Amino acid sequence: MARGRPKDPEKQEQTRQALRQAARVLLETKPYRSITIRELAQQAGTQSAMVSYYFSGKEGLFISLLEESGEQRQKILLSIIDQVKEHPERALELLVSNMIDAIVNDTWLVRLLQDEILTQQSQLRDAFMNALPRRLSQGLNSLLSALMEQGVLRSDLNLKFTETTLMSNILFPLIAEPLLSEVAQVDRQVVSSDAWKQHITLLLNQGLQATDASPIQTGPSS
Amino acid sequence: MARGRPKDPEKQEQTRQALRQAARVLLETKPYRSITIRELAQQAGTQSAMVSYYFSGKEGLFISLLEESGEQRQKILLSIIDQVKEHPERALELLVSNMIDAIVNDTWLVRLLQDEILTQQSQLRDAFMNALPRRLSQGLNSLLSALMEQGVLRSDLNLKFTETTLMSNILFPLIAEPLLSEVAQVDRQVVSSDAWKQHITLLLNQGLQATDASPIQTGPSS
Repeated sequence: MARGRPKDPEKQEQTRQALRQAARVLLETKPYRSITIRELAQQAGTQSAMVSYYFSGKEGLFISLLEESGEQRQKILLSIIDQVKEHPERALELLVSNMIDAIVNDTWLVRLLQDEILTQQSQLRDAFMNALPRRLSQGLNSLLSALMEQGVLRSDLNLKFTETTLMSNILFPLIAEPLLSEVAQVDRQVVSSDAWKQHITLLLNQGLQATDASPIQTGPSS
Repeated sequence: MARGRPKDPEKQEQTRQALRQAARVLLETKPYRSITIRELAQQAGTQSAMVSYYFSGKEGLFISLLEESGEQRQKILLSIIDQVKEHPERALELLVSNMIDAIVNDTWLVRLLQDEILTQQSQLRDAFMNALPRRLSQGLNSLLSALMEQGVLRSDLNLKFTETTLMSNILFPLIAEPLLSEVAQVDRQVVSSDAWKQHITLLLNQGLQATDASPIQTGPSS
């Protein structure tokens, strides 16, 4: 039974990492449901048996991938929160820019969101929700709440609505890329550009309306 | 071959409508791909043969549904544009409220967007894109452009980005309902509430930031 199983812990971790990386790569071209254990092993340069040995099967491998990603993203969120606390006057700019950077290149994660969370036949839903939204929502919520108390954000804001608004403006262009790239020429590359980040920052800072309603310049406050 | 086919044009139209209505109803509980011709006919109270007689098959029926919906939505958009032209000072409020009303109850359309446009294995993509986004985008674009020229919207806005922002804030909460209803308690019912519409209108009008940056009141302009 133990034939071919590496005993060296470092090698074991390498194989685990290679399988998770294989999962990410395969998700870029095909949906979770179509990926086979054989393909995962082949892409990782290992044997099919390793998938069940290390992860008790395909689902376990993807759950492990989500958990790793959730932990990384929680660290990223904490560092964004630290930056925002240091520069509350740039809160929305920092949130937008860092949150976009933290997701824009992870096509595999956007793909899982499209295929497994937003459709009716979800298989990984619970693992996904536990690893990412449930974990991250709380941190974002307390940050937004602190920014309202500090007078950075409007005091009349509904916290849940505001959290949704952040997600809408950051995630929608990525998950709706098949639609938006055609009708508005907004794709992944545009979303990672400074011009896009500035657009979203200005939207959240001051809206889309012309500022003729408050034309008087009060000059720099410093 | 002609056995059972209604000859009366009115009855023919009734059967077509009943089949389109059956398609809408079935989409609320299952994905396009799983719906069978037999189920469609049963739901519509007609025979399976009618699906190929009137629509040359299942795909044709759904394409017809999308085209009908695209025409209706184009009329709705034109009437929204007329309202906005009459009340440019309420442009964003009217756009938000009317655009939400025009989509929030069409779960079948959101479902098709989730299942057929945002995933990799789209079967209805072209029909969907032609019937709705391609058709509606132009009208929205010229409206936004006119509002910029009139000084209602900021003159530095990128039109394509602004169009994307409208779609993000209106569509994301609907297509991401499985995620948002749990992490932010924002669901279809919340989206159709006045509180939500007001949140989005204020976001687009003035952003999320506290307005302490421009505290000087210039008084009403009239």
